[in-house]
Amino acid sequence: MRELELIPRRELERVRESVSDPDVRLALLADMCRLNALVAVKRAGSGHLGSSFSAMDIVVFCLFEELNTAELGWEHPDRDVYFSSKGHDVPGLYAVLFALGVIPRERFLRLRRLGGLDGHPDVGIPGIEANSGSLGMGISKGRGIAWAKRRLERGGRVVVMVGDGELQEGQNYEALAAAAHEGLDRLTVVVDRNEVQSDKLTEEIVALGELEERFRVFGWHVRSCDGHDPRALREAFASFRGVRGRPQALVAHTVKGRGVSFMEHPVALVEGGGTYRWHAGAPADEVFARAVGELEERIAERLAAVGLDPLQMEPVEPEEEALERLEGEPESGVGLRVSVTDEYVADAYGEALVELGRKHERLVVLDADLASDCRVRAFELAFPDRFLECGIAEQDMVSTAAGLARHGLLPVVNSFAAFLASRANEQIANQASEGSRVIYALHYAGLIPAGPGKSHQSVRDIALLGALPGVVIVQPGNAEETRALLRWAVEEATESVALRLAIGPSPRRIEFPAGDAVRPGWGRMLREGEDAVLLAYGPVMLHEALTASEILAERGVALAIVSMPWLNRFDRTWLARDLAPFERVLVLEDHAPVGGLADALRRELGREVVGFGVEGWPACGTPSEALRAHGLDGLSLAARVEATLGARAR
Amino acid sequence: MRELELIPRRELERVRESVSDPDVRLALLADMCRLNALVAVKRAGSGHLGSSFSAMDIVVFCLFEELNTAELGWEHPDRDVYFSSKGHDVPGLYAVLFALGVIPRERFLRLRRLGGLDGHPDVGIPGIEANSGSLGMGISKGRGIAWAKRRLERGGRVVVMVGDGELQEGQNYEALAAAAHEGLDRLTVVVDRNEVQSDKLTEEIVALGELEERFRVFGWHVRSCDGHDPRALREAFASFRGVRGRPQALVAHTVKGRGVSFMEHPVALVEGGGTYRWHAGAPADEVFARAVGELEERIAERLAAVGLDPLQMEPVEPEEEALERLEGEPESGVGLRVSVTDEYVADAYGEALVELGRKHERLVVLDADLASDCRVRAFELAFPDRFLECGIAEQDMVSTAAGLARHGLLPVVNSFAAFLASRANEQIANQASEGSRVIYALHYAGLIPAGPGKSHQSVRDIALLGALPGVVIVQPGNAEETRALLRWAVEEATESVALRLAIGPSPRRIEFPAGDAVRPGWGRMLREGEDAVLLAYGPVMLHEALTASEILAERGVALAIVSMPWLNRFDRTWLARDLAPFERVLVLEDHAPVGGLADALRRELGREVVGFGVEGWPACGTPSEALRAHGLDGLSLAARVEATLGARAR
Repeated sequence: MRELELIPRRELERVRESVSDPDVRLALLADMCRLNALVAVKRAGSGHLGSSFSAMDIVVFCLFEELNTAELGWEHPDRDVYFSSKGHDVPGLYAVLFALGVIPRERFLRLRRLGGLDGHPDVGIPGIEANSGSLGMGISKGRGIAWAKRRLERGGRVVVMVGDGELQEGQNYEALAAAAHEGLDRLTVVVDRNEVQSDKLTEEIVALGELEERFRVFGWHVRSCDGHDPRALREAFASFRGVRGRPQALVAHTVKGRGVSFMEHPVALVEGGGTYRWHAGAPADEVFARAVGELEERIAERLAAVGLDPLQMEPVEPEEEALERLEGEPESGVGLRVSVTDEYVADAYGEALVELGRKHERLVVLDADLASDCRVRAFELAFPDRFLECGIAEQDMVSTAAGLARHGLLPVVNSFAAFLASRANEQIANQASEGSRVIYALHYAGLIPAGPGKSHQSVRDIALLGALPGVVIVQPGNAEETRALLRWAVEEATESVALRLAIGPSPRRIEFPAGDAVRPGWGRMLREGEDAVLLAYGPVMLHEALTASEILAERGVALAIVSMPWLNRFDRTWLARDLAPFERVLVLEDHAPVGGLADALRRELGREVVGFGVEGWPACGTPSEALRAHGLDGLSLAARVEATLGARAR
Repeated sequence: MRELELIPRRELERVRESVSDPDVRLALLADMCRLNALVAVKRAGSGHLGSSFSAMDIVVFCLFEELNTAELGWEHPDRDVYFSSKGHDVPGLYAVLFALGVIPRERFLRLRRLGGLDGHPDVGIPGIEANSGSLGMGISKGRGIAWAKRRLERGGRVVVMVGDGELQEGQNYEALAAAAHEGLDRLTVVVDRNEVQSDKLTEEIVALGELEERFRVFGWHVRSCDGHDPRALREAFASFRGVRGRPQALVAHTVKGRGVSFMEHPVALVEGGGTYRWHAGAPADEVFARAVGELEERIAERLAAVGLDPLQMEPVEPEEEALERLEGEPESGVGLRVSVTDEYVADAYGEALVELGRKHERLVVLDADLASDCRVRAFELAFPDRFLECGIAEQDMVSTAAGLARHGLLPVVNSFAAFLASRANEQIANQASEGSRVIYALHYAGLIPAGPGKSHQSVRDIALLGALPGVVIVQPGNAEETRALLRWAVEEATESVALRLAIGPSPRRIEFPAGDAVRPGWGRMLREGEDAVLLAYGPVMLHEALTASEILAERGVALAIVSMPWLNRFDRTWLARDLAPFERVLVLEDHAPVGGLADALRRELGREVVGFGVEGWPACGTPSEALRAHGLDGLSLAARVEATLGARAR
């Protein structure tokens, strides 16, 4: 692999100070930031390049030229406020903030690492004005900020970057109407109109149609321009200054992947056979080298053209945990795999869905623009007329499923758990209250992978669905159990089913006892032990539980491990037979300590159950960093179990 | 009070069969259904007349003439499907379904009663096609139904009635885009464009602007017409039959309260001093008599004009629980009060908010079109420039508050708990993750009032917010505690605060021990007793708990009652001092058994806690019906406590 090299801050400063033509300067800075973002993503093993690159010229224009933020500083009450609602483009923003000296080098190189830079924007990071990554909230936030500025008679404008795919979320239209109603003329929305969502065209997923007209009909002043042309951007922003009583929208036509030829739409879409591959994930070594080469060459040409010395790159110290960082990052598109022995539950889910689809003609699959990550693309290809692409609109997807379910179909609804259980919560409740049956596939459930950060990590979904009558929540521990639970959900269940699915692999193959089939409300013993029993669910935590048990065995503590995929249904026979004999019952949650399996068991058993879960906001980092940060890795867990048993027994 | 009289089904049949002019027939049927809806609402003591009346001509046109549903029956797969997304207009729909013989007389007269007709649509009721009442889901559901019909090659169209205020919800725009994208030409949306929301103009709350253009820009075929003119409706629907590949929207211009002169907008708005008073709630006796008189007179005139005999009304047997049914129905607008001794916590909240607003210039109040019910109108009047009306758009309201909170203001966000904690859940999580401070006032928390039905009753909100770091959940038990907790939330709390508020009164004044102040994490002993302790929160359940304790005292069981307003924070000193001495700890939840106070206490105490909560879907009915149905009234509770203690101790 090519050694990583960063463009140091002094080189960015040099260009900023020495290039007199503002357009050339901005174009150079944008490419330099692209290169640095690429390096950060490569080092992180993951990150969103496609939209970082499409938005880059706009971000550079805003923060280096148009807005007063860098000058006044990010704490100044009169500062202009810039943030990205989509948040996926944050590697690009980080690179700009690094270039401006806001984010220090060491932190910039710790993208998606503990104590570094979160995979999606977080206000704990210098220069970040809003938490995002979960889509569609930005215009509302911008409206709040603009309203606060007006109310407090503070200076400054608010510029919110919005993705075009993101405009499928309904909240945007609430915000558009409300911001226009309030006449917030210091609010500007820039749409990064790159035409591509996670891996397909917006017009193919759910068409935006006449986008400019949408803004206009909601009372906004609208313009469009080439989002890569500093002059056009300058002109648009200048014209907005004269607009009174109305917020402004700039539909900036951009190219997804801009700056690296083979990442650029539409070439990339053609090369990908209709699938855009550079939305997320780090490029492999050879591809990375080509991308860097292209950027370096263009930067070199531009520097030469204005008579400046060539770029002095700075080597980046090598990184250890490279392999681990690649594990199961969602929205990867690039099919990165690590040498683990277990099959992904996600893959097993996707395959089982196709099999069941063959057998059950009433089974339909709904997706919210995460078809690859949710492994439903195979179903889409096999049964195109039973696949309903809903776009980034989880609420509509769920209520649509409610309509399908009452009219003869069995919908399987897919999205990430963090979005589905939360954004569409009231819609799920409404559907369940109709007594129909829907299967909710809650992908990317739990703490790991921890690189994307708290907007994506789902550690509340059991709590969010647990108080609903008529919804069974299950999480399989391996591929085989995934197939069995999905089959049960489709063929046997009488209620709606929430199927939590880990998106990454387990570092070990979780083995169930031979001949011990999946039965509603029954756990399965993975490892015997008489001192206490620890229940866990999902491949990630089952591995940590088994590891803890192995460590404890060496210390003379026999900790039984039970895989418990049923998170809110318990068979009383099983409880009496397998759980009652243990004096101490412990639970390892891939969830917050509130609202998970331990709470449900306590209600059921009427006795003490000690729970270990994700306390506080989920940490961003590599899997082992995040697990350690929460004391949930095997080693920490062994110590915690020992302390718990010791405190009571010894 | 005037004796209630219903138009019997045979009279409706007579008109249906004898009047040959379809327009006269429909107009007569509409007024007859208006009269019956009025009677049902009067008898129920609550219900939405304003939009029942504005939508009535459309509903009558659809179900008596345009659609095949009545002919094919409500189970037929090829039937046309009609339902109302807003659902508030359901008394009108019930009257039509009664007229069609779908809902029997006995059930029609049990509006908002246990085993009768839910306050908002529920598919358990004959003729009801979708659960609604929580706004903005209907177009999505209609899209699902239309998609299912196409996929399964079934006949029939889908007509969804949508409120104009309801179009502030973002989900509608997700659905509009998606339905157009799918080319669902068997889907028709009718907007009941009556221009008035709960008590103000849509254009004043959050303007809809060019409504027709909104649909058009989202790819729909659009028409508008007079929604009270059968001929115009007929023409519009006829023209839709020719539309291929696009769903159709009919913007039906209507008059809120249509049919009763003094309930009609704009007269009613002028008479109400700018506030529309007939959105919800039953009219007082004299007003009721006038309304009935008007309708009867017009019906009589019309019958005479076509040479038919006058109407034969049928007396309605008197109803017992009249007083109780008036208790604290939300969205009442008509200020009904019952003779209870306790002050509403809701009123205390509204007053305290104004006081705190006077003291704290940074305090701002946000509302989602429930200003009267949430008692924030006084704040709006006192501090208009610190009041932000967001319309029916909870997600936008919360993210706007997030923006305000990070930019110097302290937002107090208001809506019903069922909508706020659920619809805006991900937005609340996002705000909390920014570490800013927002106060969420969750009005209408808990089971009571039970008349509006499950879309409005909030028994999941503690579970929905409980797993969030940085959000304290509290519920005051009386007016004084409401003031104290709101003051604490504004002046002392360091985290975001969710303030659960009962919307109705308690049948008794909850008295706290003198000199025992509100302290974070501390409960207060309301009644001593050594056999066990029962914790409860909120005026409704504290009353039931005290009643149970009084009943048990007579039976020789001394049950201590603790008011515990802190639902997820516990002071360890208090736990050790006041709770630890009890061998048995019981909790009465105004919430589902999952995710409430009992779960939190179990986690904290590591011992058995017996919980009594709202099992299953919350029952619709009078307060005592609903409490009894769930075994949570004082008497049932006493028996359950006794059984619990007996099972363990005796």
